[in-house]
Amino acid sequence: MVVMDREKNSYTARELAHLVGGELVGDPDLVIKGVSGVGESRPDTVTFAENSTYLDKAEQSRAGLVIVPEEIEESSKNIIRVKNPRLAFARIASHFAPDMLYRPGIDETAVISSTACIGEDVSIHPHVVIDKEAVIGDRVILAPGVYVGPGVEIGDDTVIHANVVIEYDTVIGSNVIIHGGTVIGSDGYGFVTDEKGHHKIPQLGNVIIEDNVEIGANVTVDRGTSGPTVIKQGTKIDNLVQVAHNVQVGEENLIVAQVGVAGSTRLGRRVTLAGKVGVAGHIELGDNSTIAAGSIVTKNTPSGVFYSGNPAHDHREELKEQAAKRRLPELLKKVKELEKRIQELERS
Amino acid sequence: MVVMDREKNSYTARELAHLVGGELVGDPDLVIKGVSGVGESRPDTVTFAENSTYLDKAEQSRAGLVIVPEEIEESSKNIIRVKNPRLAFARIASHFAPDMLYRPGIDETAVISSTACIGEDVSIHPHVVIDKEAVIGDRVILAPGVYVGPGVEIGDDTVIHANVVIEYDTVIGSNVIIHGGTVIGSDGYGFVTDEKGHHKIPQLGNVIIEDNVEIGANVTVDRGTSGPTVIKQGTKIDNLVQVAHNVQVGEENLIVAQVGVAGSTRLGRRVTLAGKVGVAGHIELGDNSTIAAGSIVTKNTPSGVFYSGNPAHDHREELKEQAAKRRLPELLKKVKELEKRIQELERS
Amino acid sequence: MVVMDREKNSYTARELAHLVGGELVGDPDLVIKGVSGVGESRPDTVTFAENSTYLDKAEQSRAGLVIVPEEIEESSKNIIRVKNPRLAFARIASHFAPDMLYRPGIDETAVISSTACIGEDVSIHPHVVIDKEAVIGDRVILAPGVYVGPGVEIGDDTVIHANVVIEYDTVIGSNVIIHGGTVIGSDGYGFVTDEKGHHKIPQLGNVIIEDNVEIGANVTVDRGTSGPTVIKQGTKIDNLVQVAHNVQVGEENLIVAQVGVAGSTRLGRRVTLAGKVGVAGHIELGDNSTIAAGSIVTKNTPSGVFYSGNPAHDHREELKEQAAKRRLPELLKKVKELEKRIQELERS
Repeated sequence: MVVMDREKNSYTARELAHLVGGELVGDPDLVIKGVSGVGESRPDTVTFAENSTYLDKAEQSRAGLVIVPEEIEESSKNIIRVKNPRLAFARIASHFAPDMLYRPGIDETAVISSTACIGEDVSIHPHVVIDKEAVIGDRVILAPGVYVGPGVEIGDDTVIHANVVIEYDTVIGSNVIIHGGTVIGSDGYGFVTDEKGHHKIPQLGNVIIEDNVEIGANVTVDRGTSGPTVIKQGTKIDNLVQVAHNVQVGEENLIVAQVGVAGSTRLGRRVTLAGKVGVAGHIELGDNSTIAAGSIVTKNTPSGVFYSGNPAHDHREELKEQAAKRRLPELLKKVKELEKRIQELERS
Repeated sequence: MVVMDREKNSYTARELAHLVGGELVGDPDLVIKGVSGVGESRPDTVTFAENSTYLDKAEQSRAGLVIVPEEIEESSKNIIRVKNPRLAFARIASHFAPDMLYRPGIDETAVISSTACIGEDVSIHPHVVIDKEAVIGDRVILAPGVYVGPGVEIGDDTVIHANVVIEYDTVIGSNVIIHGGTVIGSDGYGFVTDEKGHHKIPQLGNVIIEDNVEIGANVTVDRGTSGPTVIKQGTKIDNLVQVAHNVQVGEENLIVAQVGVAGSTRLGRRVTLAGKVGVAGHIELGDNSTIAAGSIVTKNTPSGVFYSGNPAHDHREELKEQAAKRRLPELLKKVKELEKRIQELERS
Repeated sequence: MVVMDREKNSYTARELAHLVGGELVGDPDLVIKGVSGVGESRPDTVTFAENSTYLDKAEQSRAGLVIVPEEIEESSKNIIRVKNPRLAFARIASHFAPDMLYRPGIDETAVISSTACIGEDVSIHPHVVIDKEAVIGDRVILAPGVYVGPGVEIGDDTVIHANVVIEYDTVIGSNVIIHGGTVIGSDGYGFVTDEKGHHKIPQLGNVIIEDNVEIGANVTVDRGTSGPTVIKQGTKIDNLVQVAHNVQVGEENLIVAQVGVAGSTRLGRRVTLAGKVGVAGHIELGDNSTIAAGSIVTKNTPSGVFYSGNPAHDHREELKEQAAKRRLPELLKKVKELEKRIQELERS
C-alpha cells in the first residue's frame, strides 16, 4: 500500500527527521511524497523497520528512506534513527493522510441557531444542524448530517463524522474524533415499574467526553440519570460499543468493538476491554486490568489483572478449566469404571 | 445533581402534591424550581426518600421538600406522602426535564410529500424527510435528519430523535420514543440458496410498534417477511438491540442493550432480557421469564423462569455447574489419585 | 399476508411461468395481482408448495395459482412446475415488491460536488450529499440523508438506504444493497501506545464491496490500515455486524446479526457465522465452515467444519462437553463417595 500526498506538498528527509525528532543519516534533500509498506515501496516513499531483520528487507526494497531504531548505526539506505520507529512512522503517515473532511467555511444548507457560537476556521458540511446555545471550537469539522443539540460544547480541532447525533448539554473536549452514525447523549435506560407498567425516569444528566478521545462508528453513549456519563482523556473506543448512563470510563482505556458497559460502572486508568466484553452495572475495574474477548465481568476486579470467562476470573484459571472441560466426557467414563472396580473389591 | 427548570414555570408544593396524587404535610405555597439528589439539594428543590433511613438523611439536607412513603407520618421537612416515592419523583422530574426537542412548526428545510398527512402542533426539525402517504399524529416531534418512508403512520405525542430511519408501511403508536440512529423496517435477513448463490426473499411485511414503547439508540427492527414484526405496548428497548423479521415482542418487556432476537420468535408479557442475551429463532419465551446477561436461549422457556448460561437453563443449576467447573482441575487430580489407590488395593 | 401490486401492472399466469422458467399447467390468461401465504390466499394471488403435503393445503385454499416442484404432475389448481418452488416464489414476489425508493431524478436539496460523476436514471433523494470525484453508476438509488465521500465509486443498480455513511475512496460494486444507518469506511482501530498514551495509526486503506453483496442496518465496516478491507461477491450481512480493518470476507458468506470479525482475518468461500459470533484477528476460516451462534473463534479453522463454543471447536465435542457439564455437580458427589469407599477398603 502506497499512500501519496493528495493535497499537500511533499517533504524532504530533513523535514521528516525534524518532525519526529529523529537523527537523519543520509541525504537531507531527498524528496518524499508518501508512505509505504516495505513490499510496495518506491524511491520517493518512506517505510520503517522495527529491528535489524526488518531492516535487511527494507534495504533490499526500493524505499528511499527508512525509519529505524536508535541502535541501528548505519545502513545502505537513507535512515532516520528514532526511539520508536512504529510511532514515528504513524506520525509521518498522518501528515500524508488525506484530510478528506477539511472544507473551510459553513455550507449554506447547514441550519445554525442564531444563539449558537461558532469558532474560527471551522468546516461545517451540508445539512449539519446546530441547535441553540451550542458552542463550537476553532477548526472543528462537522461532516454532513451531524446534529448538535442545544447547549452542546465542542472543543477545538475535534472532528465529527457524518450523521453523528449529539444530544443536548453534551460536553466534548479538544482533538476528539467521533466516527459516523454514533449517538452521544441518548437517554439512559431507567424505569420505575408498578402494576401499570414501566414508567420512565427522566435522564437529567449529560455526557462529558474529554480531550484526545476517539469513538468509533455506530457507538452509543447514554446521558446520566443525574450527573454525567464520563469518558476520560485519551480513551479509544471501537465500533458498536454501548456505554450506559453514569458510567465513568477512565483515562486511556482501549474498548474494542461490541463491548457493553452497564450503568454506573467505573473503569480505572488504562483498562482494556477486548471485543464483545460485557461489564455489569455498579462495579469497578482496577487500573491496567485487561478482560479477554467475549467475557462477562460481574464483580469488582483488582488492578493489573488479566481476566476471562463468564463470569470473568483469572485467565490462567479459566484456561485450566477449559482444558479440564475438554476432558469431561472421558472423566465421566473413568469414574464409572472406577466405581465398578471398587464394587469388585468390595465383593471380594 | 440538581436539575432546574430551564423552560417552564416553577411549581408550588401544593401543585406537585396534586400532580402525583399525594398528601402534602407542610407549606403549600413553597416554590420548587427543580429536582435533586439528597446530596445536592437546595431549599428550592425536591428530593425523595424511600424509607425512614433515607428520610433521616433528607432531613439533614437542604432540600425544601421530600417525597416519602405513606407510612411516614411527619417530618421536620415539608413532605408529600405517596405510595411509591421513586415513581412520584420520576413523574415530578419529568415536569422539570428540559423539553429540548420541542420546536413548534415545520422547518423550511424539511421535505414533505404533498400526499403526507401532518397532525396539529407538530415539531418538524430541519432536514426531516416525510415520504408519500405518511400520516403524522398531533404533537409528534421529528428531530433533525429523520426519514419517514412511504405509508408510515405515527401516533400522537410520539418523539423520534435525530437521524432515525423509518422504512415504508411501519405503524408506530402514541407516546412512543425512538432514540437517535435507530432503523425501523429494514429488510429481514432471508435468502434462498442454490449453487448460484443466495437469492433474496423479498421482505413484504412491515413493523408495528404499539403505544408507550421506548426504543434506544442505534437499534434495528426488521420488517416481516410476510406479516408484521410486532413490539407490543409498554415495552422498553435499550441501545444496539436487534429484533429480526416476524419477531413478536410482548407487552411491557425489558430488553437491555446489545440483545439479539432471531426471526419469528415470540416473547411473552413482561419478559426481561438482560444485556447481550441472544434468543434463537422460531421459539417462545413464557410470560415473566428473565434471562441473565450474556446467555443464549436456544429453546422454548416456560413462564416465570430465571434462566442463564449457553444454552440457557435454570439459573440455580447454572450456578452449581459454574461452581463445579471451578473445581474441575482439582477433580481430575483427585480421580487420578483414586485410580492409583484402587490399583494398590487390586494388587494386594 | 397478501402483497398486491401497488405500483406496477399485474401479470398473467403465462408471464409468471416464463419469468421463472417453469411449466404452466392450467389457464395461461389467469390474471395474478399479488403473492400470498397459503392461509391468506385469494383467486388473484399466487402461492407455493414445496411438497405434496403443502400442495394439499394449497388446493384447499383460495389461491388462483400455485408454484410446485417438478415431480407434481397435476393439481386441481393452476400450477407452475419448477425445480425450486421457494426460489421461484421469491423471484415472483420480488416483481410484486413495492419499489419504495424509486424516485427518478435528483432532488433539489441534494448537495452534489461539481466534480462528481452521476450515472443515468438515478434516484437521488432529499438531503443526499455526494462529495468530490465520487462516481455513481446507472440506476443507483441513494435514499435520504446518504453521505457519499470523496472518490467513492458505486456500481450500477445499487441501492443505499437512508442515512448510510460511505467514507472516502470506498468502492462498491453493482446490485449491492446497503440498509439504513450503516457506516462503510470508518477508520480501523489502530494505535501505537507509549507512556504518553495511545497514538493514532492513520488508516490509509479503503473498503471494497463486490457485486451482489447485501449489508444490513447499522453495520460498521472499517477501512484498511493499508490496503483494503474486502467483502467479496454475493455475501449477505445482517444488522449490527462489525467488520474490522483489513478483514477479507469471502464469496457468498452468510454473516448473521451482531457478529464481530477482528482485524486482518480472512473468511473463505460460503462461510456461515451465526448470530453474535466473534472471530479473533489475524486468523483464517476455511471454505464452507459454519460457526454456531454466540461462539468465539480464536484460531484457524479447516474447511467444512461445524464449530461452536468459546473457544470454538468441533460442535459434537462441544455438545458432549455441555452434557457432561450438566452432570458435574453429581460427579463431584460421586467421586467423594468413591473416595470414602476406597478408604473403607484400605482400612480393612
